[in-house]
Amino acid sequence: MLDVCLLGTSGMMPLPNRFLTSLMFRYNGSSMLIDCGEGTQVSIRMKGWSVHDIDIICITHFHGDHVSGLPGLLLSMGNSNRTEPVIMVGPKGLEKIVSHLRVIAPELPFDIKFIEISKESEELILNGYRINAFKLNHNVPCLGYSVDIDRNGRFMPEKALEYNIPQKYWSRLQKGETIEEDGVTFTPDMVLGGPRKGIKVTYCTDTRPVDNIVEHAMNSDLFICEGMYGEKDMIGKAREHKHMTFYEAATMAKRANVSQLWLTHFSPSVIKPESYLEEVKKEFSNTVIPKDRRSVVLEFDKNE
Amino acid sequence: MLDVCLLGTSGMMPLPNRFLTSLMFRYNGSSMLIDCGEGTQVSIRMKGWSVHDIDIICITHFHGDHVSGLPGLLLSMGNSNRTEPVIMVGPKGLEKIVSHLRVIAPELPFDIKFIEISKESEELILNGYRINAFKLNHNVPCLGYSVDIDRNGRFMPEKALEYNIPQKYWSRLQKGETIEEDGVTFTPDMVLGGPRKGIKVTYCTDTRPVDNIVEHAMNSDLFICEGMYGEKDMIGKAREHKHMTFYEAATMAKRANVSQLWLTHFSPSVIKPESYLEEVKKEFSNTVIPKDRRSVVLEFDKNE
Repeated sequence: MLDVCLLGTSGMMPLPNRFLTSLMFRYNGSSMLIDCGEGTQVSIRMKGWSVHDIDIICITHFHGDHVSGLPGLLLSMGNSNRTEPVIMVGPKGLEKIVSHLRVIAPELPFDIKFIEISKESEELILNGYRINAFKLNHNVPCLGYSVDIDRNGRFMPEKALEYNIPQKYWSRLQKGETIEEDGVTFTPDMVLGGPRKGIKVTYCTDTRPVDNIVEHAMNSDLFICEGMYGEKDMIGKAREHKHMTFYEAATMAKRANVSQLWLTHFSPSVIKPESYLEEVKKEFSNTVIPKDRRSVVLEFDKNE
Repeated sequence: MLDVCLLGTSGMMPLPNRFLTSLMFRYNGSSMLIDCGEGTQVSIRMKGWSVHDIDIICITHFHGDHVSGLPGLLLSMGNSNRTEPVIMVGPKGLEKIVSHLRVIAPELPFDIKFIEISKESEELILNGYRINAFKLNHNVPCLGYSVDIDRNGRFMPEKALEYNIPQKYWSRLQKGETIEEDGVTFTPDMVLGGPRKGIKVTYCTDTRPVDNIVEHAMNSDLFICEGMYGEKDMIGKAREHKHMTFYEAATMAKRANVSQLWLTHFSPSVIKPESYLEEVKKEFSNTVIPKDRRSVVLEFDKNE
């Protein structure tokens, strides 16, 4: 069960009633944040979620609207008496940027471990989240993230009985653990069926449409993608500033065969993003124009 | 006429419906801001005031809740096409702190001029604001600010006639200008009466109560002062963290003979600051527990 909350939908600057774009996950007691603009910590409180449990912070790029809330968030995490280390993931230069911003948050009661991504794409497995960071096409180095919650194969008790595996080990094998005792080894593949579909969420902002997005977002349950402009004739401005129109995002969603698209990172000039929904749906029908703090609980398929 | 708006009333961290403490002035087409926490630019927009016209930014100290909104504000001022320089005033180290924070706002279309205060107190006259910065007593170097709008003496046309001053010069003399023409000098004191009471606002946060506050806040029309705690028995915590209770702030207000006190910088633990109002009023009757964006227009006394 993966909790997903889009904490804000604004791009460029925070507005009254429109926080900067940021995404938060909760899974298995561990929270993960992607991007942290000015005000993100307030939106987390408005949602009623906790800053204390954020174990992983991924940053897409170092433009102000995606990182300006970091020092405040780190201070608040410290004030919540967090002592466990935090893992930060981002483009090359992350540690330097964060150390500059920490001029106003020099003392924290927890350590920060930095993972800087410099390859075209990189996979990390952290706290049960399988994270793929991949290059986008913006005017500064920028990363998209897809987050998978993998699901083991179905447990087959008949196989466990066949192999004479003591029942006390069943639950651990089911969770993927290998067990060695008295010179005998039991492996999960002895009792588990083939892998089942997990949960996949992909988050892409800021970027032009590129094949890399389609590839990494492929078959996502939820694709959260920037749409800076709702008016079709803003395509020129989108190209110039390396952003996307709603329709370009929808084309990516269609090509990537995702289940649902949530648009975000609206330009302050887009007063009513929902007014473009009907038109965008012609491109990709399962498009949502979310309000701040739209959330969803994604679950494994009960029929598998 | 001086517009004053208390943009937020929170201390330590921004909360839903309670922005971080920050004060904004508008006078004669030039705006001035004191402190800029995370979210300050949003509160300015909610008030309907403009970030474009902020010519002066004063910082009390470098704790996150007083400066974390700076890079975002500067970026938004840039996005509003401001090109005129901005003057920043603050404790020693200001330029260094701001340069670190600007790692995410490296390119701005305007210059920033820094004035670092290292004396016990210092007077600056900027854009018609007479600003006195003075030392407070916090756990890091911290400044209070009093802001005066001075008022010239009353114009006396009978004196102008007596001195045979051509009428075309009257208005300039009235504004305090000295005029030389054809070897004759006309000075404002020839036509103006004695100085009249101006407008004075004093802003003090974060600090313990000290005589310096009483001295600089003396006779203010409006005294905006931190009150971190409303419960009287929090005095120990106030001393430990170098803050004040509501009652200590009220005592300062009384000693400084101010017209009105607005409390601010409430601890997140103070859920209903207004519940302490009755008790605080016993100390200083003209106390206000403001909500975010409380504002007032202060005018020169019409009877003087």
